[in-house]
Amino acid sequence: MKLARIGEVGAERPVAVSDGIYYDISGITADIDGPFLESDGASRVAAALAAGTLPALAVDDQIRIGAPITRPSAVICIGLNYAEHAAESNAQPPSSPVLFLKTPNTVVGPNDTVAIPRNSVKTDWEVELGVVIGRRASYLESPEDSISHIAGFVAANDISEREFQLEISGGQWSKGKSAPGFSPTGPWLVTPDQVDYRNLRLRSWVNGEPRQDSTTADLIFDVDHIIWYLSQYMTLEPGDLILTGTPAGVALSGRFPYLRSGDSCEIEIDGLGRQQQQFIDA
Amino acid sequence: MKLARIGEVGAERPVAVSDGIYYDISGITADIDGPFLESDGASRVAAALAAGTLPALAVDDQIRIGAPITRPSAVICIGLNYAEHAAESNAQPPSSPVLFLKTPNTVVGPNDTVAIPRNSVKTDWEVELGVVIGRRASYLESPEDSISHIAGFVAANDISEREFQLEISGGQWSKGKSAPGFSPTGPWLVTPDQVDYRNLRLRSWVNGEPRQDSTTADLIFDVDHIIWYLSQYMTLEPGDLILTGTPAGVALSGRFPYLRSGDSCEIEIDGLGRQQQQFIDA
Repeated sequence: MKLARIGEVGAERPVAVSDGIYYDISGITADIDGPFLESDGASRVAAALAAGTLPALAVDDQIRIGAPITRPSAVICIGLNYAEHAAESNAQPPSSPVLFLKTPNTVVGPNDTVAIPRNSVKTDWEVELGVVIGRRASYLESPEDSISHIAGFVAANDISEREFQLEISGGQWSKGKSAPGFSPTGPWLVTPDQVDYRNLRLRSWVNGEPRQDSTTADLIFDVDHIIWYLSQYMTLEPGDLILTGTPAGVALSGRFPYLRSGDSCEIEIDGLGRQQQQFIDA
Repeated sequence: MKLARIGEVGAERPVAVSDGIYYDISGITADIDGPFLESDGASRVAAALAAGTLPALAVDDQIRIGAPITRPSAVICIGLNYAEHAAESNAQPPSSPVLFLKTPNTVVGPNDTVAIPRNSVKTDWEVELGVVIGRRASYLESPEDSISHIAGFVAANDISEREFQLEISGGQWSKGKSAPGFSPTGPWLVTPDQVDYRNLRLRSWVNGEPRQDSTTADLIFDVDHIIWYLSQYMTLEPGDLILTGTPAGVALSGRFPYLRSGDSCEIEIDGLGRQQQQFIDA
């Protein structure tokens, strides 16, 4: 099952996506939010889709796609979770998951225009596998328990301002992670039965030139480990978004220029869809 | 104006507090949330209180007091913002505000029991002046603009697990800041006209023994500077909670033992009220 939200900012309509057709699910839920996910809404949508009771929507090709979930209660990120990216960041691979947070109001649609913050000269891209929590998770017994707390997966761009994150931060990364629009998410929320989340190719491009190209099989701490581990330190809420880390190939490496006004960034994760953002000045 | 929320978890009722009496304001707003604050709801409550049109509530002395605001979209913290606390933490005073985040689901009532996380041996207290945002703030022109974006002030205990924060964190503090119940807030949201927020005494006690005793006049970066500064890096949303940093006198200093099951912690900020938490094992 692929779920999405389409329409203007603040007025998105929840839909199921099948064979490129949008099906209205507003008769099942007003939005794709924590209560919907927690009550296994995706199964109800799948049943309705199979029964043919969902109305197909005639939508313009140009319709805006929103983030496939409403604003989460938290955006929880894992840092330095691919060995080659840790190396290009001049950091050691971590011995346990490194946790930091982005403000939830960074979450926007996958193709929304992104403003480069004022005074930024080091705005960078980061393709990441995102995990959406379906059921509250606290002190899970083992990583094997994690999957039953996962609603699905999303593509995300964990946009980062490296000077704000690393140079004027006192070492705390959130200052460079929380600018408006810094978490393009989607286009789809894809349920776990649809993808092999342990081995998904993830890629990024800038102005059409390839940047990152890796697979979630290379995660140092995999999805099941991350959800179990986080649940030892915090309560994960339905609808929360976990960003699992980015592979090598970002501008911080020194191999590529940072993003500038007029640039276009694309990211894609197999089975989770593709995003494209135009960058402008704030 | 003092605002509060009283009642059981998830069923809090919004009230105004005057001369120790709770006045029901549910006729004005369903809750003390972003839309209420953004629409200058406090002024409407003040007018109704002055006009004598708010019904007084007969409540039990034992009624639970909730956090005086609904769950914020973000809990934004400033680290090492008192010189003596930076020194006791073996850190240099920062040259610009250090920003980190707590998950919003840490916010609980001021007197709620707090669970010491499993495997914790370094749970610590931090009395802090909290600022609640009243109006969206992005790229404020100067610190003088900050006050018009502030709904009011709260007392908060920024509870922290130092091993999780500093020793197994990869340097990112949020892992030790986000356990359930780690942000007791309240009892009141106090509007800016009621307190001199630039010079408020703030204190903490453990089992009745004094720990912290300072004043917000000693903040390295003051409230007006913080709000202006944060707005250069993120959008502050109505209802967001900013914790401005803690003064010297925490267990991390080595001068006091960490919190253990059975301990009691109290914090107080002049004009903003007093909290007391009992600590238990998770």
